[in-house]
Amino acid sequence: MNATKEVVVRLTKYKNVLEKLRSLGFVKVFSDNLADALGVSPALVRKDFSFFGLSGKKRAGYRVEDLIAQLNHILGVDEIQRVIVVGCGKIGTALMRYRGFAREKIRVVSGFDVDPAKIDANAPVPIRDLNEIPYIVKSESIRVAILTVPETVATQVAETLIAAGIKGILNFAPILLKGGNGVVVQNINIALELENLFCLLRFADKDMGGESA
Amino acid sequence: MNATKEVVVRLTKYKNVLEKLRSLGFVKVFSDNLADALGVSPALVRKDFSFFGLSGKKRAGYRVEDLIAQLNHILGVDEIQRVIVVGCGKIGTALMRYRGFAREKIRVVSGFDVDPAKIDANAPVPIRDLNEIPYIVKSESIRVAILTVPETVATQVAETLIAAGIKGILNFAPILLKGGNGVVVQNINIALELENLFCLLRFADKDMGGESA
Repeated sequence: MNATKEVVVRLTKYKNVLEKLRSLGFVKVFSDNLADALGVSPALVRKDFSFFGLSGKKRAGYRVEDLIAQLNHILGVDEIQRVIVVGCGKIGTALMRYRGFAREKIRVVSGFDVDPAKIDANAPVPIRDLNEIPYIVKSESIRVAILTVPETVATQVAETLIAAGIKGILNFAPILLKGGNGVVVQNINIALELENLFCLLRFADKDMGGESA
Repeated sequence: MNATKEVVVRLTKYKNVLEKLRSLGFVKVFSDNLADALGVSPALVRKDFSFFGLSGKKRAGYRVEDLIAQLNHILGVDEIQRVIVVGCGKIGTALMRYRGFAREKIRVVSGFDVDPAKIDANAPVPIRDLNEIPYIVKSESIRVAILTVPETVATQVAETLIAAGIKGILNFAPILLKGGNGVVVQNINIALELENLFCLLRFADKDMGGESA
């Protein structure tokens, strides 16, 4: 993960924590609290905030409401973020209907699949043929795609997406896709995450000692 | 992420790359190739392998088949890994039926939900009431749970799971759960990942310059 990506990830995490604090009725927050919540140093929080001109007073802390507004502006999440879902299998279909997106102002514009039986242009979220990707990406100015196709075709479909103008891919196919040339890829391999959990538990059982520091 | 976690994550990534190489007919591989595939230094690959006693020859490389067998042994993935899915909404249901798990020898033993309409003890993967979690976790010796409940109850359900003996949680609820006391939590926040992608693209548009190094 490069520096920009790390900073962006932290900014969105700050925002998430702040929104929870706001819902709890908090008015002010200190860099120490945010540092604790994210597991980073207070100095890093202050550095991030100062870099982006987020203002607060050392002794009085930051105003939660102000920080959220400023973060939303920096992160550009005031507006609706539109995505497509490519591959309408179990995970893809679940994501097309995922309620958690609405609150974050994420809207799935269309699904795409190769299976003619799944095509339904009149569904609340239409499902179209893969061939229509270039047209929809262009006409709807889509920049981000969720990729939930089988592993065997993931690389090829990713190339189609990039050729159509997609700049960001959230990849659920169990294959490590790489970004570059202005394209950002975020890989989520659910089976791998589970394997990691099992391995960590197995290592914990063995008491790895010094290695776990 | 602590050192152990980082190492385990790398070992599972090596294994995934190696399995792909095997399916392509590769017999040997060099640390440089694995380093490229993971985006780490060849020295780190050799350090990892030497720490775990994975053997190869500098000029001749490593045998793919041997490495996979040794990694499977170290990572303990020779055996079936059993999990439960807690929260049978859209994402939870998709994961209960996810075909990608079978290949990784991950088996969903049971789903759990509060909604009586969803309870079905006779389904291929049974769905049971949340109250039955302690009994099933104990009788089936389950150690890992996938948490796909709404955010509002995620913390409370996680506490129930931990009290029942769960040691690893893969959390899809959009709230940052923390591990500790022998419990490992891996958080996957899909909406947040998408937000990060949008932000990265926005930052790329602005050309962050030095900060993107």
